[in-house]
Amino acid sequence: MSEVDLCEVGPRDGLQNETDILTTDTKARLIRELVEAGFRRIEVTSFVSPKWIPQLADADELVDLLPEHEGVRYAGLVPNIPGWDRFCSSGRLHDIALFISVSETHNQKNVNKPVATHFERLRQVIERSTGAGVPSRVYVSTAFGCPYEGAVAQDAVVDLAVKLHEAGADEIAIGDTIGVGVPRQVKAMVKAMSDALPLDALVLHLHDTYGRALSNAMAGYEVGGLGGCPYAPGASGNLATEDLVSLFDEEGIETGVDLEHLTQISAWLERDVLKRLLPSRVLRARLGPR
Amino acid sequence: MSEVDLCEVGPRDGLQNETDILTTDTKARLIRELVEAGFRRIEVTSFVSPKWIPQLADADELVDLLPEHEGVRYAGLVPNIPGWDRFCSSGRLHDIALFISVSETHNQKNVNKPVATHFERLRQVIERSTGAGVPSRVYVSTAFGCPYEGAVAQDAVVDLAVKLHEAGADEIAIGDTIGVGVPRQVKAMVKAMSDALPLDALVLHLHDTYGRALSNAMAGYEVGGLGGCPYAPGASGNLATEDLVSLFDEEGIETGVDLEHLTQISAWLERDVLKRLLPSRVLRARLGPR
Repeated sequence: MSEVDLCEVGPRDGLQNETDILTTDTKARLIRELVEAGFRRIEVTSFVSPKWIPQLADADELVDLLPEHEGVRYAGLVPNIPGWDRFCSSGRLHDIALFISVSETHNQKNVNKPVATHFERLRQVIERSTGAGVPSRVYVSTAFGCPYEGAVAQDAVVDLAVKLHEAGADEIAIGDTIGVGVPRQVKAMVKAMSDALPLDALVLHLHDTYGRALSNAMAGYEVGGLGGCPYAPGASGNLATEDLVSLFDEEGIETGVDLEHLTQISAWLERDVLKRLLPSRVLRARLGPR
Repeated sequence: MSEVDLCEVGPRDGLQNETDILTTDTKARLIRELVEAGFRRIEVTSFVSPKWIPQLADADELVDLLPEHEGVRYAGLVPNIPGWDRFCSSGRLHDIALFISVSETHNQKNVNKPVATHFERLRQVIERSTGAGVPSRVYVSTAFGCPYEGAVAQDAVVDLAVKLHEAGADEIAIGDTIGVGVPRQVKAMVKAMSDALPLDALVLHLHDTYGRALSNAMAGYEVGGLGGCPYAPGASGNLATEDLVSLFDEEGIETGVDLEHLTQISAWLERDVLKRLLPSRVLRARLGPR
């Protein structure tokens, strides 16, 4: 029994920023190793148009290679109804993930639609997933700040989260898209959210742009309490998951993840797959500067 | 009036790890800019033997170039009586800094002496500084863990700190030499220390090996309360001070330091002086990956 639920998003959120296309076999190996390291929730790919993200164009083929494993839940990102249809026909994933921004400008740049229009599209997907018994998680992006509009009101984030939850979303992932949040904000946000929503519907999706992802994860853990608040920190390119697992280990917070195995996965990715230094502190401490 | 006192140790603790020797003029410019950015406490150099740390061999020349500035206090590292004599004849510095490890093996490797023998040497220096009215700060190294011995007992750290304070040390800097401390440990340590010593005698000297320096600084701030607990996080090569100032700024904790100016200093160091990427998140967020 873990005290904190980690959802590893590296295969989707990490890889989608990589310009070199990984083979489908390599991705399948990565996910298999993550399962063996102890992760029970993994976001494996995205059903966006291959034109948008060529790295994830092999979603359908990848899904066929995933190992079945008791207790492991795989999620796929679903941006719209065509994505939902692909998710369904793939037939091997358990959860869907969706995304919407709090700030108009970011949402417009991201999906070329106003927030309200995009919300109605999400609602259609969520209705279908609810009807099919598929749990859904919605990333609420720019929750702690927008690269175009700056500060984002906490009330606006809570309001959007409540609307999404009322529309049937099972989990709300509070997304610090540009990594500007600080512990004070995270605590205030989780408190405000937990007044409006059940605590176990909340997820933190943090980025490490300013090196604050660990501080913010601890802040979220502290205010969210034990055994109910799952977190989904950003993946490689963002926060290295082994840095988070290492911190939780030393704090005595059980993650269910084998740090040694996870570190070996990152070493393999760095040495054999991505062939560049990854932003992992644990890896640098183990292997040296290069 | 700052809520938190930052002692910038980059010119000493940061530069001593750089293999390329900087000119004395460059070091003087760095310190001048740090003063202009708002730092009021700067550890500028070390009076160790030039054989040990060639980078800091110009301590005496550098001290002559330091700008006098109302309210600014400069510190020099003093390892022993010959170092104290050099500190005195330099005549321009305000404070001394000393160091001792909690763990025997680290102390032996660092200064080639058992802890008890080294303590007696420190006592002699502290007696002289007290007699001369020069404030002293002692770094208690390996306080959260030793690279050779592993875990270090909190009681041993507190006992050593109390002995040093009784010997006349004005400040005790709790040193996380290898960056393994976590917020839980920092909070417990500061609490235990503040039961035994005045809070304003405590300093945190943190390293960022595992990316935990910001989390640990916030933990220390939270448990230490406002207006009395100075911190001295590690410098470049360790934690970038602008990352800490940026976090404190966003948390609403006044540091007295101009983040914009500080970031420009780091950009100059990176581009014109050290000519390699510095481990600064703020700099990367501003300037991009390179």
